[in-house]
Amino acid sequence: MTTSTLFIAVDWGTSHLRAYLCKVGEGSELTLIDQCDGPGVVKVNQHFQQTLIHAITPWTAQYGVLPIYIAGQITSTIGWHETPYLECPINPEGLLDAAVSFECEGHTINALPGTKCTLQNTLIDVMRGEELQILGFLKQNEQYQTGKILLCLPGTHTKWVLINNGKIICFKTAMTGELYDLLCHQSVLIPDDCAEGEFDWQAFEQGCDLTLGSDSGNLAHGIFSVRTRQLSKELTPVQAKAYLSGVLIGSDVRAARYASEWQLLSNTQVVVIGTKQLNTCFTKALTKIGVQCSEFDIKSATLSGFNYLYQSA
Amino acid sequence: MTTSTLFIAVDWGTSHLRAYLCKVGEGSELTLIDQCDGPGVVKVNQHFQQTLIHAITPWTAQYGVLPIYIAGQITSTIGWHETPYLECPINPEGLLDAAVSFECEGHTINALPGTKCTLQNTLIDVMRGEELQILGFLKQNEQYQTGKILLCLPGTHTKWVLINNGKIICFKTAMTGELYDLLCHQSVLIPDDCAEGEFDWQAFEQGCDLTLGSDSGNLAHGIFSVRTRQLSKELTPVQAKAYLSGVLIGSDVRAARYASEWQLLSNTQVVVIGTKQLNTCFTKALTKIGVQCSEFDIKSATLSGFNYLYQSA
Repeated sequence: MTTSTLFIAVDWGTSHLRAYLCKVGEGSELTLIDQCDGPGVVKVNQHFQQTLIHAITPWTAQYGVLPIYIAGQITSTIGWHETPYLECPINPEGLLDAAVSFECEGHTINALPGTKCTLQNTLIDVMRGEELQILGFLKQNEQYQTGKILLCLPGTHTKWVLINNGKIICFKTAMTGELYDLLCHQSVLIPDDCAEGEFDWQAFEQGCDLTLGSDSGNLAHGIFSVRTRQLSKELTPVQAKAYLSGVLIGSDVRAARYASEWQLLSNTQVVVIGTKQLNTCFTKALTKIGVQCSEFDIKSATLSGFNYLYQSA
Repeated sequence: MTTSTLFIAVDWGTSHLRAYLCKVGEGSELTLIDQCDGPGVVKVNQHFQQTLIHAITPWTAQYGVLPIYIAGQITSTIGWHETPYLECPINPEGLLDAAVSFECEGHTINALPGTKCTLQNTLIDVMRGEELQILGFLKQNEQYQTGKILLCLPGTHTKWVLINNGKIICFKTAMTGELYDLLCHQSVLIPDDCAEGEFDWQAFEQGCDLTLGSDSGNLAHGIFSVRTRQLSKELTPVQAKAYLSGVLIGSDVRAARYASEWQLLSNTQVVVIGTKQLNTCFTKALTKIGVQCSEFDIKSATLSGFNYLYQSA
């Protein structure tokens, strides 16, 4: 059991760095003292150490040397210190056994491993960071330690993860968030001068309906309707963004529905673990195909996962 | 019948401007005297007139005022002078009837119309420029003036076009080329420092097989294998680019196969009208699903279409 009651947890993905100063109480409960955001792995031009030190200096100036845990793409081939992939099925309680520790300006940094699985079509799939969030979710929801459940973790890359008896069995990645960002900001679909505006749920649902209801799963064909429906004045540019989100999320959910690795039936338990906005989007799409789902907050999952690992160190 | 034997034809799309100085002989055959390339519609920051004049000045300096024909996205809402959409079914021989003429530094510019159709799912689809290329193809291949044929025009946006008795019946757009460019240059899939290298046909075919053989048409899921197969050292970055191309083109062909607007059976005639490289790509993918296809050069189609319209003016 560790003696310090303070530690720093860093969830550092492709698009964002999220650092948390955490305090563990006598009953093992975690209190979030402070947090800060920073640039993602692909945005810091290899200046990983400077970026991290800059983020945590206000805390270390006050509390001195603290244990640091990092997870996410920062531990991948495009990150700072590469850690291995654990081969599924795995019990996420054991993540720390495969962590790689290194020193950085007097702090010990524990870089967590990623996870790998081989799909039925012989392709491999990988994730980094989500296994920690899954651990945190399971620790907060002990009822899922037995039986099967399908988790959906939306983000830059959506991860669909099959859990059985508390173990990660296999998972599939869809690049839905990354596609949305590219198509929204760098394609002919949305005008450059598109205003910010309230998310249009009706347009979102129309987009979902298009791809969910498609016989062919015609994503590349369906996407173009984001432009044609603006040409025909059915959608404003602001509505078109929500519609595009619906087209992409509908396609993501449709592919998960027909994945051969699991059966997504009306009685399948699905938990969506993301931000409030993304949880609502995926829940609406899943509900359309008759799947009952519940939602869990991604930040709670992240902090709970780090807390478990810190206390088991 | 026009009296001048010289004219300028401009195919000005989203990504490229292609201008041609053309001469018509006594037997109506076209001779290409010169050509030049320039930036596409989205790349000239609204400086349409300057861009065109810059491109054609070497010709007008020598030959004086010439008739000019323009087609493509330059006539759309994001272009220079907007022209109407003709509603399918249309006979492309009549394109000039809906052209919009305007003066530009003493030249008369004839801006051709676009084409619009309503698909079975009530969405509309649009194109600009391809109807001219289809006209040119049909004029070079009179045997297709009767009966049904499916055309595939790959490019920034693939157009699949159903022709019956020389008329354009309906068509569908897939944003395959644009997705390829975005994913190749701006996503986590291909490293920024990826070398140029010979196109790897074996990797391309593996990509095709993935999406063509998928039960769910899981494009967003399939794309991520471009990264995982590099992580597992199955593909170099250069091979990964060809594989990505295969994944996207396989998905495009798969969606065309299951489109409810036509039946793409083994005895369906498909002609692919594009550049040599894209023609080979789409032919390989179509051959994999048992469709016999032939290829036609896009530049020949473009020039033939302009030539027909010029002579019918």
